[in-house]
Amino acid sequence: MSISKTRLNQRLLDAEYAVRGPIVQRAQELEAAGRKIIYCNIGNPQALKQPPLTYLRQLLCLMEYPALLDSEAALALFPKDLVERVGLLRAKVPHGTGAYTQSAGLPFVCRAVAEFIERRDGIPADPRRVILTDGASKAAQAVLLAMLRNPGDGFMIPIPQYPLYSASLTLYGGEQIGYYLDEQHGWQLSEAALSRSLDEARARGVHAVGIVVINPGNPTGAVLSVENIRMIIAFARRHGLVVIADEVYQENVYAPDRSFVSFAKVMHDVGDATTPLFSLHSVSKGFLGECGHRGGYLELRNVPDDVLDQFIKLQSISLCANVPGQLATYAMVAPPREGDESYARYQRERDAILEDLREKARLLGEGLSRVPGMSVDVPQGALYAFVRFELPLGPGADAGAMPEAERAALIAEREAAYCLALLEETGICVVPGSGFGQPPGTLHFRTTFLPPRDEIEALVSRLGEFHVKYAAGPAFAGVTA
Amino acid sequence: MSISKTRLNQRLLDAEYAVRGPIVQRAQELEAAGRKIIYCNIGNPQALKQPPLTYLRQLLCLMEYPALLDSEAALALFPKDLVERVGLLRAKVPHGTGAYTQSAGLPFVCRAVAEFIERRDGIPADPRRVILTDGASKAAQAVLLAMLRNPGDGFMIPIPQYPLYSASLTLYGGEQIGYYLDEQHGWQLSEAALSRSLDEARARGVHAVGIVVINPGNPTGAVLSVENIRMIIAFARRHGLVVIADEVYQENVYAPDRSFVSFAKVMHDVGDATTPLFSLHSVSKGFLGECGHRGGYLELRNVPDDVLDQFIKLQSISLCANVPGQLATYAMVAPPREGDESYARYQRERDAILEDLREKARLLGEGLSRVPGMSVDVPQGALYAFVRFELPLGPGADAGAMPEAERAALIAEREAAYCLALLEETGICVVPGSGFGQPPGTLHFRTTFLPPRDEIEALVSRLGEFHVKYAAGPAFAGVTA
Repeated sequence: MSISKTRLNQRLLDAEYAVRGPIVQRAQELEAAGRKIIYCNIGNPQALKQPPLTYLRQLLCLMEYPALLDSEAALALFPKDLVERVGLLRAKVPHGTGAYTQSAGLPFVCRAVAEFIERRDGIPADPRRVILTDGASKAAQAVLLAMLRNPGDGFMIPIPQYPLYSASLTLYGGEQIGYYLDEQHGWQLSEAALSRSLDEARARGVHAVGIVVINPGNPTGAVLSVENIRMIIAFARRHGLVVIADEVYQENVYAPDRSFVSFAKVMHDVGDATTPLFSLHSVSKGFLGECGHRGGYLELRNVPDDVLDQFIKLQSISLCANVPGQLATYAMVAPPREGDESYARYQRERDAILEDLREKARLLGEGLSRVPGMSVDVPQGALYAFVRFELPLGPGADAGAMPEAERAALIAEREAAYCLALLEETGICVVPGSGFGQPPGTLHFRTTFLPPRDEIEALVSRLGEFHVKYAAGPAFAGVTA
Repeated sequence: MSISKTRLNQRLLDAEYAVRGPIVQRAQELEAAGRKIIYCNIGNPQALKQPPLTYLRQLLCLMEYPALLDSEAALALFPKDLVERVGLLRAKVPHGTGAYTQSAGLPFVCRAVAEFIERRDGIPADPRRVILTDGASKAAQAVLLAMLRNPGDGFMIPIPQYPLYSASLTLYGGEQIGYYLDEQHGWQLSEAALSRSLDEARARGVHAVGIVVINPGNPTGAVLSVENIRMIIAFARRHGLVVIADEVYQENVYAPDRSFVSFAKVMHDVGDATTPLFSLHSVSKGFLGECGHRGGYLELRNVPDDVLDQFIKLQSISLCANVPGQLATYAMVAPPREGDESYARYQRERDAILEDLREKARLLGEGLSRVPGMSVDVPQGALYAFVRFELPLGPGADAGAMPEAERAALIAEREAAYCLALLEETGICVVPGSGFGQPPGTLHFRTTFLPPRDEIEALVSRLGEFHVKYAAGPAFAGVTA
């Protein structure tokens, strides 16, 4: 019997992952045909010319091929502290990059992660409660899979959200319980919106087992205040929810009046010793941008040993995270120290990347907010702007009279057509807002601000020109939204 | 509300993965306390001193840190063909190891995989139907997840099997439909056993959607004949099953009268253009042994485009396989060619590893088969021996009178006690047979033959001494099985 789509898992058929959806496929076709495409669909910094950190790559290079250490000529090409560090690592990883590690990852890397958290937050961290993962996506999926117990169980996820969460919930048979972020107030969370969302879920028989918070926000670029985090933790405690704190953008904070505060720190400071917390971090974002290495970690708090053991067992079923990714995670949490030969270069490279990102966030946010019919704040953090735009609804359409589902479908269709036209006309590839979820009746797209600075400037002006022309185009003649 | 095991997904709680189970945890405790442990529980060659291939590591080293190519002194340390190859790769991977790739993996690596299959089998292969994965485990899990559609759907899996399959089926809510391999006939498959297993499944309302075949076998070490593969394909076609061909040990064939033949080749030769085939391969086994790099591929045959798209979407949800693993896969399928400066060394290293494995398979198989109360053939392939042993059943136990489930539990308990005693007494860590499944009423353990040759000899004699002493021990005084 031959195979057809009808034999596949319905949950897989239903899962949607807009960041790599049809618009991106069309972009790849155009590129294959010779068009220059500016990929703003995905937070993939090194694909947009962000250079890797020399320190991390030198470390990986020597760990992959330690025979170089036997050559005087080769040694002269590496800073002394790096060579010493690799010597220490080799003693701690005697089997090198080629052997499976413990299921939770190399113990000294887990220790380095715990020390990193202790330095960052001034709170204790338990290395036994750190699991190294193939990027943060796998860590998030592990928590969802582990915590979805009964039919009707679900997770609260932000709207707009990163579609990893909606797609993985669909895959694992969990329910999505969307809560709206407040666009008018810099995309912070409001307790009223959380409560409303939980009430609505209960009304349709859905049981929330946890809440996902992305801070700094994807796609919103918002950085949560301490007060907001405190409110979320109290809310989770009150309703018996586990918390997934997706903190992969913790180094990406640009607004001078904002700083990253971890859920772990706030939870410690408020003395909450019961609400389970799963914190995610990754080598893919920040100033490393090492997406291709699929490195990251999951830190578990307020989780007893027997529950921890189940997470380690889950990890063991596919053996362990890739070892170069584990070492990249080590390089992230244990950078060179002041006084090391590598230090100045490391600092220079890091600062240049962060400064560049800050400037590009400003250029993009300020530029697009000046386009008539577009609105967006300068992103406070992360790598994205979630840009709101207005369009006439089209001839014959009377939005007010439409049922909500029909209206949402129309909105999604309009967004997709807009993003496709943008791609065809300008080569700029962004993702329609409906892929992330958004307040009803609004139009958005998500764009990164990762292209090189001069391209950002060109992008802003081409996007603006396109928008004005598109909104005035024949499809919408004589119609207002 | 604090968290406890009772809040976790029952499927996760139920999943078992013996290869990293309690015996291995005890081994790690003993090791931490200073005991020398010989880890024969897992196919992790480089942890047991198998050296990596220089060619692969040089390639990864330069791809991680291409700045080395700018130094004359560094260049002199690498073979010319390797440097040229890296130059070509850099043109094909302009973003290097740090960027996400296409969801299915780097297109030129997928092409190299297809060419490898064409060379190996003399059949056409479609690069668009190759998906690069984080090791073969992730590939197997993707197929199981995608194909389990309805409650009661399941996969036929061998008994004994590799517990990835049973654990993943449990995780994803699929049914296990075990079919016995024939220990008396070198662990080949028999059509009668397949039919019996399918009938029994139907009788309990379970619907088989596919069959898993591991060739060469894990844990059995058997290499399937062409006739056997032909029978399996005809069986799958007759019953509308998809086939998962786990062929990660394809380079590990030691028996002079056996050779590896792929399911793809046999399917092509018999002209079956409808039965869906999912073939897995990995960089972790063979002569590479690069477990830590988590590289591998999934090749799909007789699968239409819209089904393929769903597999690529599934991959896209966690972005892509790690890039060093993708490049390791490239190095596996595109080794140096005759005439290349790297060639002689590559060949020498490869042949030494395979020759060593062949000799160790013989030493272990012949040695243990001489122990009174043990039986095992010299493994034809893979990295394991599945050793049968006999024990008195213990005072008061009358095996004949026991119900089957009770008897299986007693067997599992006896095996676990045996393997634990072996570990405590000798430091040798093997896995109880019950973790893989086995014919009813029999006792087995799985051991690798990966330790260095001199250790294998010591291992054989210590295992033999232990067994004789244990079987004659006070627990069994005066009792026969």
